[in-house]
Amino acid sequence: MARTPVDLARKLSAFSDHWSPKVVARLNDYEVKVVKLAGEFVWHAHDDTDELFLVLAGTLTIRLEDGEVSLGPGQLFVVSRGVRHCPVADGEVHAVLIEPTGVVNTGDAGGPLTARYDDSLA
Amino acid sequence: MARTPVDLARKLSAFSDHWSPKVVARLNDYEVKVVKLAGEFVWHAHDDTDELFLVLAGTLTIRLEDGEVSLGPGQLFVVSRGVRHCPVADGEVHAVLIEPTGVVNTGDAGGPLTARYDDSLA
Repeated sequence: MARTPVDLARKLSAFSDHWSPKVVARLNDYEVKVVKLAGEFVWHAHDDTDELFLVLAGTLTIRLEDGEVSLGPGQLFVVSRGVRHCPVADGEVHAVLIEPTGVVNTGDAGGPLTARYDDSLA
Repeated sequence: MARTPVDLARKLSAFSDHWSPKVVARLNDYEVKVVKLAGEFVWHAHDDTDELFLVLAGTLTIRLEDGEVSLGPGQLFVVSRGVRHCPVADGEVHAVLIEPTGVVNTGDAGGPLTARYDDSLA
């Protein structure tokens, strides 16, 4: 029986909302999510976990309290647990997030950009 | 201070050996590895963990006991824990592996393709 892989571009073509990660795969107690980003997010931290960002399209800057990192397609960065950061997308960015199940996108900040859990594409 | 992201293509350009995963980033107690694959690997399973394959270049077929999955660039697949599988690369394949720290590439099979732990690119 032929299995179907997870095609990241196809998953990303299935939605248009920003800052709303969609679970596309699970790895033990971790989740692989795709997300579209545009503009500036909120400063926040995840006190209990690191968070991996992999950019597939566009340019994402992750502001940190002591600097920043700029990611283009095929580049990844891991924000360590407890590190305050603010993602800023130059235009629209397509990215993959990998983190433990249940991590909320706005971390300790909360607020209107807090996304509802969405595994409808998994 | 500007931080440097992990550029997957650049990491892959730094070596040429096959079936020898190189750690390029850490996410809690998980590792992100890049690897070059060519030809057929060995049938094996990882009894304690799922294993994520993301293909960046080439075509990778993962044979499973009840079928197979074929992955091209931008496609991923998670082999569930305990599932016997045999990766087969059509030509040279560049891929990302994500799994807990310490997972050995040949799992329960061992043998000459068992890779030495390599985090020299991390």
